[in-house]
Amino acid sequence: MDQGQLQEIDQTVKGWLRDSRKFVLTKMAEKLNVAEKSSRKDLVTNVDKANEQFLIERIRQFSPDSQILGEEGFGDKITETSGWVWVVDPIDGTMNFVKQQDHFATMIALYIDGQGVLGYINDIMNDDLYSGGPQLGVFKNEQRLPAPANLGLADGLIGISGPLILRNQFNMQIVAEKSAGVRAYGSAGIEISHILSGKLNGYISYLKPWDFGAGKILAETLGLSVTTVDGKPLGMLSSDFVMVATEKAQRDILPIVG
Amino acid sequence: MDQGQLQEIDQTVKGWLRDSRKFVLTKMAEKLNVAEKSSRKDLVTNVDKANEQFLIERIRQFSPDSQILGEEGFGDKITETSGWVWVVDPIDGTMNFVKQQDHFATMIALYIDGQGVLGYINDIMNDDLYSGGPQLGVFKNEQRLPAPANLGLADGLIGISGPLILRNQFNMQIVAEKSAGVRAYGSAGIEISHILSGKLNGYISYLKPWDFGAGKILAETLGLSVTTVDGKPLGMLSSDFVMVATEKAQRDILPIVG
Repeated sequence: MDQGQLQEIDQTVKGWLRDSRKFVLTKMAEKLNVAEKSSRKDLVTNVDKANEQFLIERIRQFSPDSQILGEEGFGDKITETSGWVWVVDPIDGTMNFVKQQDHFATMIALYIDGQGVLGYINDIMNDDLYSGGPQLGVFKNEQRLPAPANLGLADGLIGISGPLILRNQFNMQIVAEKSAGVRAYGSAGIEISHILSGKLNGYISYLKPWDFGAGKILAETLGLSVTTVDGKPLGMLSSDFVMVATEKAQRDILPIVG
Repeated sequence: MDQGQLQEIDQTVKGWLRDSRKFVLTKMAEKLNVAEKSSRKDLVTNVDKANEQFLIERIRQFSPDSQILGEEGFGDKITETSGWVWVVDPIDGTMNFVKQQDHFATMIALYIDGQGVLGYINDIMNDDLYSGGPQLGVFKNEQRLPAPANLGLADGLIGISGPLILRNQFNMQIVAEKSAGVRAYGSAGIEISHILSGKLNGYISYLKPWDFGAGKILAETLGLSVTTVDGKPLGMLSSDFVMVATEKAQRDILPIVG
């Protein structure tokens, strides 16, 4: 795709995200309707659903021949990844959204023939938009982000999801001990944005395609490694244990994972 | 103390904190000098030290007969708590300060004859000041904070420090599992500020007097419980495992701690 066309798409998506943020903030002032999905720790709200519909409507209008993969199921059932595929997470970190009204993100990704082209993580309450892709570079709002320092595990903070730490899956308690400190923020989007800006040097969690779709594109653009927790390639339709990390941190973590 | 005198002190301390914040932001633009204290995970920087000196100088000038307890040792050696005692933490969350340049706080507390009178948690990067005490109420910047909802353990998110989760001290892994989710932000000041604003319903960590001095005053003013992890009273000069929580969350956690 030529740079002009790409920038036009980029501006269009940023417009959707600005409007979607206002929509979410307005809905937050009303009473939330919260339901459980797979368990009491897996929530969905009327805002997750309404915001996914809001975004999918705009994508359909802009790009009617695309496939859309949305967390809440208003998109398409996708079994193959040729052509344009949009990945939408209307509210990433729904538990934080419900309990904190903070620390959640709206995310959009565009893949073409399985290749990541554009990714967006919108930190709603901080009003910080992380955006870009391999052809554009990565931006926090208007500011271009440099590649984060390639720090090893011991030299940085690591984000690990609560369940992985608590159950010591993949020896995550050892990974945490060997790091400079473990953090848990409860949103893949927020944690990956912290890796992009160098505040964490890794993040490990069980993720679904909408949780990592945008972050994978942005992280790889900055030279970060995005794989399964045991270092295998991560397909864009996979649900798996995912590790996003600096190259050095990944090299330190893989032998611990076993 | 009458309300007028208290408000005058309050305005004075807020002035110090505004100036101190600018001082810290200026120093952050220069090269940090980082040293280890008790371990590689216990850091101090030139900014911690300079900011403590900055604040202690102002306290001495304003209130020369007070005792001052400062994390970095520029205050007094305090063995008894009669009279005015100021507690100063120049940078709470030094690891975050060093690795993230975010998620840290400057804290000041005033105790008179062992009673908490005024507390301040200044979230530097968000420019949010939590302030107040039993006579004034609690404020986030200019806005008065209501008492947080009295939610039980299962109905809210809980902050637990990394080491306590990793080593399952006091059955913290069970506490985390029973909560709606565990979070770890790496700064007592930031985590207690999240309890004040209802984003967490509890926080458990090993803390020193400067880590909880301000937060204890603010939390108790809002009807929250601040005790040792096993529910005993917490002396203002103690170093101990501390639990800050809603009353209901505390009641749910105590039997798990054993």
